[in-house]
Amino acid sequence: MDFVLTNARMVSLQANKAGYDVSPPQNITVINGKISAISHLLPENNSLKVINCADKLLTPGLIDCHTHLIFAGSRANEFEMRLNGVPYQEIAKQGGGILSTVQATRSATEQELIELALPRLDGLIRSGVTSVEIKSGYGLTLDDEIKMLKAAKALESYRSIKVSTTLLAAHAIPPEYAGRADDYIDYVCNVIIPAVAEQKLACSVDVFCESIGFTLEQTERVFKSAQQFGLKIKGHTEQLSNLGGSALTARYHGVSVDHIEYLDIEGVKAIAQSGTVATLLPGAFYFLREQQLPPIKALREYDVPMALATDMNPGTSPFADLTMMMNMGCTLFGLTPEEALRGVTCHAAKAIGQSECRGQLREGFDADIAIWNIQSPAELSYQQGIPLLAARVVDGRFERISSESYFQ
Amino acid sequence: MDFVLTNARMVSLQANKAGYDVSPPQNITVINGKISAISHLLPENNSLKVINCADKLLTPGLIDCHTHLIFAGSRANEFEMRLNGVPYQEIAKQGGGILSTVQATRSATEQELIELALPRLDGLIRSGVTSVEIKSGYGLTLDDEIKMLKAAKALESYRSIKVSTTLLAAHAIPPEYAGRADDYIDYVCNVIIPAVAEQKLACSVDVFCESIGFTLEQTERVFKSAQQFGLKIKGHTEQLSNLGGSALTARYHGVSVDHIEYLDIEGVKAIAQSGTVATLLPGAFYFLREQQLPPIKALREYDVPMALATDMNPGTSPFADLTMMMNMGCTLFGLTPEEALRGVTCHAAKAIGQSECRGQLREGFDADIAIWNIQSPAELSYQQGIPLLAARVVDGRFERISSESYFQ
Ligand SMILES: [Zn+2]
Ligand SMILES: [Zn+2]
Repeated sequence: MDFVLTNARMVSLQANKAGYDVSPPQNITVINGKISAISHLLPENNSLKVINCADKLLTPGLIDCHTHLIFAGSRANEFEMRLNGVPYQEIAKQGGGILSTVQATRSATEQELIELALPRLDGLIRSGVTSVEIKSGYGLTLDDEIKMLKAAKALESYRSIKVSTTLLAAHAIPPEYAGRADDYIDYVCNVIIPAVAEQKLACSVDVFCESIGFTLEQTERVFKSAQQFGLKIKGHTEQLSNLGGSALTARYHGVSVDHIEYLDIEGVKAIAQSGTVATLLPGAFYFLREQQLPPIKALREYDVPMALATDMNPGTSPFADLTMMMNMGCTLFGLTPEEALRGVTCHAAKAIGQSECRGQLREGFDADIAIWNIQSPAELSYQQGIPLLAARVVDGRFERISSESYFQ
Repeated sequence: MDFVLTNARMVSLQANKAGYDVSPPQNITVINGKISAISHLLPENNSLKVINCADKLLTPGLIDCHTHLIFAGSRANEFEMRLNGVPYQEIAKQGGGILSTVQATRSATEQELIELALPRLDGLIRSGVTSVEIKSGYGLTLDDEIKMLKAAKALESYRSIKVSTTLLAAHAIPPEYAGRADDYIDYVCNVIIPAVAEQKLACSVDVFCESIGFTLEQTERVFKSAQQFGLKIKGHTEQLSNLGGSALTARYHGVSVDHIEYLDIEGVKAIAQSGTVATLLPGAFYFLREQQLPPIKALREYDVPMALATDMNPGTSPFADLTMMMNMGCTLFGLTPEEALRGVTCHAAKAIGQSECRGQLREGFDADIAIWNIQSPAELSYQQGIPLLAARVVDGRFERISSESYFQ
């Protein structure tokens, strides 16, 4: 289904100042899933279907580069207990926390995990997302991690969406390894990573490197194994304390370090040098009522590309809306609307290792496009709740969103 | 179109402890726009259409009891300038602030105002809203205030929604009255209120009582005039300082005091005694990065009903999503999910003077119902972005929401 989008005012998000300017109306020709031309002229092949984009604004399809979209069980009860003043120990005793999600996810089938994830994915899609990164990390056994990764990838056959999978076996210590973190890391490095790599179930490997997660030394063992098997490297680093996980990720040429509220200037310099993306997750910051802000000024100064993602997960960021994160990035972290939009397009593409083909409106790039009922790109960061998405294109497949007829 | 909702698990929000419990499956009979029966038995009239609500959870339709939904112009540019570090004076010089909204709203026709408001209304509707309060206050002349109130009421013929209108002529001093606030209050009391009352265009009158708004004395003059013309009274009070506007509103038996971050214990006692609702607006608190929390503990202690609303407006709360406000109420103000849900149902009904017929699932009440894809009511406050609404009923009109087919 090739076509041409006419009268397309666009924000290309190319890597220059003009990349955030609204262009005059142009024509975007989409052939074989790629943007084949962006021009003031109409293509010569006039048998192409014409879609008029007058009054709309086009951006690259948004990329949510950090999610935990696949899980079973609800943590709404835990949220409610906490607000009702139930002490933390009592919640833990009643089976709260991440291990409750692990237990429910282990008990679920792949098909159940898919069905539970679809409404979350629909939330992301209606906020403009065309690519989503999804992590494992609630299985914590070879079979359950594989089940999660397969469920994540299978979402592509239920919706028009592109899924990048990340193995996060080193998310928490599973109950059967309680007190034996090093043994669990052995299992991750010697069993899970090799099998997942062999079956090509993940593009990247991630580790929760934190005082309440895995140590620097354990993290490095996982990175070494990932590197050996040719997988990209990511880190959950410096969320609650400054352990040095980001600098370690940089040493292993990681594609991104994520959270990084506690990142210091040495860490900023390290990731600047390695070209690692700083992924900001304001949803978790907001939900946990954190006070420590990520070092935005230093990241700007050292020209570190900043991505912005939902971190969609049941424990600390139950938010399936990427434009909401753009608003939180601006409101809570002081990002500019341009930084917020680059954070969910060109920089997010880099954070999932896809900067050569996604995250910009550019000839030769994948035809992943969000078509909005807005005049200026700042509106995406500014307002919430209003259905702004008019249509979307994923790998050249065009879908109209019937925002005006939701309730008619 | 009468019908019976079968297998309906519900949270009635009636004014007792059980009002927040999930009921066993029951049958709700809807006749002539009212809930005529809630029963374990099926109605005898078996010609009624049957709608099966298995796997859903029913609540009263949500009520957004404080919005400024009608306005023209965008303030996204102002948001962007601020984040780009443009000084406040420069933004003001370029025509930012509330007066830019006044100017754009004065220039718009009633029909333009309606069309601009519909996407905002669609956002509220998809978050479960069946009743919305809408204030004037960007016209500030008799004709323009009337135009806004008519546009607000006209929304009822475009969507299935119930609109309560509030005259907020005392929102700001219009430019032509600069430096002559008392003269403008004369105009409000002697010209605008009488005309609006005579034409029955508003249910209530509201005043922005604040150091940067109107004084206590000016507020009282407006309240006196409203009282004389039989209109209900509301106040924007104690948002940025403790002026005593809430206690004044209580003296005039106001239905609600709104914002109230700076309300002191004397103010709490005053509104407790008058039965005035405390309407919390966490969207503005969040957007303005305020630090002063409303006195939740004292409000609980004195049994003041707390409502929760979007305050949807272009300057300080551009959020058209009422469940997002439930999340912010819990996350930022520490409300319990029960308080958040009562805040957008039974207590919000009281804040718009409709507690006798809305905001509860109860025999004889209006058939305004939200039908959700959730298991427990806490999920409404806990998660964001996921399309949770399955269907809605407004005055007995049933509408299915095609959440699963948004993008198919
Ligand atoms: Zn995460
Ligand atoms: Zn207001």
